[in-house]
Amino acid sequence: MGSTSGAAERAKPAAGSARPARRRLSVDRRREELMAAALELFSKRDAEHVSIDDVASAAGASRALVYHYFGGKQELYVAALRSAAAQLEARLRPQGGERPLDELACGLTRYFDFVEEHATGFAALLKGGPADRSGEIGEVVDAVRHRLLKLIMKQMRVEEPGPVLRVTLRSWIASVETAGLDWLERRDIERPELERMLIGQMVALLGVAAEHDAQVGELLGDLVRDRASRPADRPSSGSDA
Amino acid sequence: MGSTSGAAERAKPAAGSARPARRRLSVDRRREELMAAALELFSKRDAEHVSIDDVASAAGASRALVYHYFGGKQELYVAALRSAAAQLEARLRPQGGERPLDELACGLTRYFDFVEEHATGFAALLKGGPADRSGEIGEVVDAVRHRLLKLIMKQMRVEEPGPVLRVTLRSWIASVETAGLDWLERRDIERPELERMLIGQMVALLGVAAEHDAQVGELLGDLVRDRASRPADRPSSGSDA
Repeated sequence: MGSTSGAAERAKPAAGSARPARRRLSVDRRREELMAAALELFSKRDAEHVSIDDVASAAGASRALVYHYFGGKQELYVAALRSAAAQLEARLRPQGGERPLDELACGLTRYFDFVEEHATGFAALLKGGPADRSGEIGEVVDAVRHRLLKLIMKQMRVEEPGPVLRVTLRSWIASVETAGLDWLERRDIERPELERMLIGQMVALLGVAAEHDAQVGELLGDLVRDRASRPADRPSSGSDA
Repeated sequence: MGSTSGAAERAKPAAGSARPARRRLSVDRRREELMAAALELFSKRDAEHVSIDDVASAAGASRALVYHYFGGKQELYVAALRSAAAQLEARLRPQGGERPLDELACGLTRYFDFVEEHATGFAALLKGGPADRSGEIGEVVDAVRHRLLKLIMKQMRVEEPGPVLRVTLRSWIASVETAGLDWLERRDIERPELERMLIGQMVALLGVAAEHDAQVGELLGDLVRDRASRPADRPSSGSDA
């Protein structure tokens, strides 16, 4: 998937390439600054309490410039959401070299870091709260869920899941989302304990799935054996293995 | 909660009681007919493909009448959603006399009946799809989730859940919602098998929770013992047992 969109990006710039590269860079940078300011605000407040003026003043730009780059508040919100989704996915990219369940646990910690940093925005989005929620926003949310599914499948070395495994992994992702919302609302469980519980849930859900699909049984056997018997025989180096 | 809102309802009607009862009844009935037509349409098509004219013609009423009762399409959608939520809750009300896990299984079957009947509307709503989705809609969805949580707690004879049990039950509800969406999209698992898997998930999730909270361990012990040791000592009356 990454390579497809990469190809699309390489194919596109021809249209805008009449402008000199330096100007283009500064336009991109200005847009990024506005976006960062918007994302910061949308992360901390409900969308209905963020105005174009707030974003302009946080970025030290004019209201007109924000309109110029994004069109309006709804477009700005969608753009900020896409940017947040891209950040989340970048953070969850496997570091490589770790065993699947450990990798999953690391990813979960990074997911909760993200939830904590974008607390208000995350809660408002997933509760279905923002006043001006369009189909486009639902699409971004669904696309993130879909990519998390792909990512987890990759971590588990699964190419094409059968129906039972697919439902199970989607259910677990929904579980994690809900646990994130609950934690933001109540914060009456320590985060590390909640994360351990969610990893335990994954193993337990796979156990249930294994009763309905022998392929999942094999996968689960590999995962648990892998975790239990193999010591850290690879250097857990940082770069993607 | 039930008794509080009941009291509020009893306190309210005074304001509208100037009209004679007969006229009031027929107004209510007309509104119900329009609502039933709207719900039928919203269940089968995406909200953006349902017009006020469609609703009027399905109910054999004028466009003006629909506007008169509901104001506009967004209000009509929200009203239809509230009506669907009330229907769902009515169906899930425990029949009584069954053991908690059996009661849960019956409730799950009725939940999936509902999902199947309102297929398109359910999928569009929970995927975050409808083009004109307001905070009010998110609130209805969250209120349903909250009441499902209360219902399941009641079935399990739990008064006030600790954090671990609360997160676990919320996670399971999210799992069921997601499984419902997945089933509507793919239908590559038989519904009874999926339902059995979800009940298995509940037991497994409680097992994980029990590792983090002794109270859940006791609860789970009761549930499983209850299911395993007690034969059908009460007549399992009712066609849907």
